[in-house]
Amino acid sequence: MKTMDQLFTDLMQDVYYAEKELTKALPKMAKEAEDSELKKAFTDHLKETEGHIKRLDKAFEMIGKPAKGKKCDAILGIIAECEHVIKEVDDDQTLDAGLIASGQAAEHYEIARYGTLCAWAKLIGKPQVAKLLHETLEEEKKADALLSKIAERSVNQHAVA
Amino acid sequence: MKTMDQLFTDLMQDVYYAEKELTKALPKMAKEAEDSELKKAFTDHLKETEGHIKRLDKAFEMIGKPAKGKKCDAILGIIAECEHVIKEVDDDQTLDAGLIASGQAAEHYEIARYGTLCAWAKLIGKPQVAKLLHETLEEEKKADALLSKIAERSVNQHAVA
Repeated sequence: MKTMDQLFTDLMQDVYYAEKELTKALPKMAKEAEDSELKKAFTDHLKETEGHIKRLDKAFEMIGKPAKGKKCDAILGIIAECEHVIKEVDDDQTLDAGLIASGQAAEHYEIARYGTLCAWAKLIGKPQVAKLLHETLEEEKKADALLSKIAERSVNQHAVA
Repeated sequence: MKTMDQLFTDLMQDVYYAEKELTKALPKMAKEAEDSELKKAFTDHLKETEGHIKRLDKAFEMIGKPAKGKKCDAILGIIAECEHVIKEVDDDQTLDAGLIASGQAAEHYEIARYGTLCAWAKLIGKPQVAKLLHETLEEEKKADALLSKIAERSVNQHAVA
């Protein structure tokens, strides 16, 4: 039977796996994006995601556990759907709209998970881990807001043109 | 090759499936929850979720498409992880913390999806559909905020007691 500490470690592993999968998906999304601002958003977020993995490495060290991932079906489902859209959409602006949607689904998954990790880190008496992961949480929220902004400003208007 | 209209219908089907799966998961989550406020939150959200399905039925009618679901791996991953937590956690307060985490992952998935659906409904010239689904989006955001509040107020404090 699992304790709060074990649930925390499990969720760290889930997010670690998700971030690693996203470092593989984001270059493809950047490559497929037609809108230059969207392409840059995905490229920039790839660099941020690499930073998130380093923070998780540090967080694992702080809780005295080896850094490792555990298969996360939710992020795999989101990424598979994104690949589906890339394969099935030809029109550039419609594809951009689809890429934004997948990107935001991934961001929201991470926002939920890092929100929980921050709360739980405090609970298990690791406020410094909470502080570290909170930096990532804020970056995920900003990445989501930027995608909304791009969608509103340029991509979506073109998609029905 | 898919058009914007088809992407919209695909995403409606994805969310329709997700909502239907949640009507099966939420009663289990309510049953397992120890905290009375958490139990009530899941029970109330089940009723809301049934309302979300009715809104989607109406939205399908408004776009002239049959209401049907399409397998959504992301929500199945989130629900499977919740069932895993139910099976592997014995302590009531730790289980409540795990149930809240799964509930918030599901809410964030829906927040991302309804956000996209609202934007796309306007795009494809269906502002009334956007308006209708926006009501659901607001309810999902409130449900997520309520889970955060319950977590902060009572459940999490107990989890390490």
